[in-house]
Amino acid sequence: MDATREFAAALAAAVRRVRSPVMVGLDPQFEQLPEELQAAGQDLAARATACERFCKHVIDATASLVAAVKPQVACFEQLGPAGMAALKAVIEHAHAAGLLVVADGKRNDIGHTAAAYARAWLGRSSPWGADALTVNPYLGEESLQPFVQAAVAAGAGIFVLVKTSNPGGGQFQDLAASLLVAKGGEASPAQCLYEHVAQMVERLAAQTAGQTGYGQVGAVVGATWPAQLAELREAMPHAWLLVPGYGGQGAGAADVAAAFDERGLGALINNARGLIYAFRQRPYSERFGPGRWEQAIEAATREMIAALRASTAAGRL
Amino acid sequence: MDATREFAAALAAAVRRVRSPVMVGLDPQFEQLPEELQAAGQDLAARATACERFCKHVIDATASLVAAVKPQVACFEQLGPAGMAALKAVIEHAHAAGLLVVADGKRNDIGHTAAAYARAWLGRSSPWGADALTVNPYLGEESLQPFVQAAVAAGAGIFVLVKTSNPGGGQFQDLAASLLVAKGGEASPAQCLYEHVAQMVERLAAQTAGQTGYGQVGAVVGATWPAQLAELREAMPHAWLLVPGYGGQGAGAADVAAAFDERGLGALINNARGLIYAFRQRPYSERFGPGRWEQAIEAATREMIAALRASTAAGRL
Repeated sequence: MDATREFAAALAAAVRRVRSPVMVGLDPQFEQLPEELQAAGQDLAARATACERFCKHVIDATASLVAAVKPQVACFEQLGPAGMAALKAVIEHAHAAGLLVVADGKRNDIGHTAAAYARAWLGRSSPWGADALTVNPYLGEESLQPFVQAAVAAGAGIFVLVKTSNPGGGQFQDLAASLLVAKGGEASPAQCLYEHVAQMVERLAAQTAGQTGYGQVGAVVGATWPAQLAELREAMPHAWLLVPGYGGQGAGAADVAAAFDERGLGALINNARGLIYAFRQRPYSERFGPGRWEQAIEAATREMIAALRASTAAGRL
Repeated sequence: MDATREFAAALAAAVRRVRSPVMVGLDPQFEQLPEELQAAGQDLAARATACERFCKHVIDATASLVAAVKPQVACFEQLGPAGMAALKAVIEHAHAAGLLVVADGKRNDIGHTAAAYARAWLGRSSPWGADALTVNPYLGEESLQPFVQAAVAAGAGIFVLVKTSNPGGGQFQDLAASLLVAKGGEASPAQCLYEHVAQMVERLAAQTAGQTGYGQVGAVVGATWPAQLAELREAMPHAWLLVPGYGGQGAGAADVAAAFDERGLGALINNARGLIYAFRQRPYSERFGPGRWEQAIEAATREMIAALRASTAAGRL
């Protein structure tokens, strides 16, 4: 595999360049934007323009500090066609700033439709131009194959939902499941559904592993479940972990320490609200005031990086 | 609940009006369009325009025969922002033609992001204006609650993936799962994952049931699994079933008979490729030739309706 066209290698290089595993979650919500950006109007087109401008400023404030951004597609989709055009412009701005872009769309469908999503999102020549996409495993490995093939061909990656960060995520993900029982045979030792999904992810990651030892298929594992995060790091040695839940959802640096390998690689720690709305939160709101919101975002990002470097293997980057 | 703002009631009324449970799947793929529509160019904007024109013609050819259309969001998303603008225009055209629109996006995410998807899609005043949206259950009932609340408030509906039509869909959906085992207690009789999901759907459907006995939460159950379709009809008496897999994926009228209640309600039978590309398939390609592709689509739709009326309770509509 050509190193310049391998997502996992590009990700490792980007993380090492900035010495930081932080991913900035771009979750623009119009009502949360700085007031100066809300002033241009309330209709969908005006909201889309405001969200686009905001995300571009966030990118400019953090591009030298982080490896990647994760635009949340839902935040743009809720603004209709104008919002989707804004998303495209934000992705292009992030690339121009030297960042990798993981589109958080949690997409999937059956075969030929999955292929359409893969064509839509994966790789810089695709219509949306993302470097990676989050995908949902409910439809099985067969439904993920078009994504894997498109990712490898385009130098892109996918992150499969394994253990999500929401409080109710365990309802199905933690169900103990045995394939043998389903086939009418003897019960094998029960594994949780998320462990079955993790086994599939590890297989796909190992099959697509490149020069860094990591594959082009990674996993989403929430920081809100530290014990399972450690277990899943071990179960998926070839998979980059995309770890949401830091900051706004309550997890801290100690909670994500187990996500890293000994080199400080293998984990991207996402923070959206805790960074991009730092200007609304103490101590940043007091230190910077409403007018210096970009500086507040930069300061919060620097402090998150420092906390991770102090408490995790990211300090060895 | 106001009958004019209740999705399940509107669906029953639409199905009864046309005496047909057929849903036309709008899965436009540029390479499959009639050649006259491919002639305007190959770039994304030209492809989006061609797909929009095609879908509008399909709607015009079938609007008097069917209750609803199901645009496949991936087919539009793969054309970038221009494709998403085309999708919006197609949805508006379907509404103007008197059809209900189920956006097939298979969306979901954690709480506040799920709410953004719900705001994006659900209800005619939403940015995309769909009457219903397909959603994925992997993140648990908590993640579906924002959709349920938005649907009820907007007179819209959701269809939760339960048992998908693809050959590999059973990899996780058919895993035998016991919640008690997961909690360290005694094993309860093992149910498949899809049965656990179905129990949740039935609960949500019953909670939102309106005047027809059906709720605003339905289920996607593939026609390619007739035995499970019968089982799931029984397990979810309050849920409309959206049944893909007819036609292009190989299922026929007999395979979907169990999806209906005794009134001929409760099931929408989707067919995309078998209808919209009928002009490429015998006997329609021979009967109509390449120039009369809209007539081929209409004829295939009429024949699917006749087959369903002959072999299922849809004959009682």
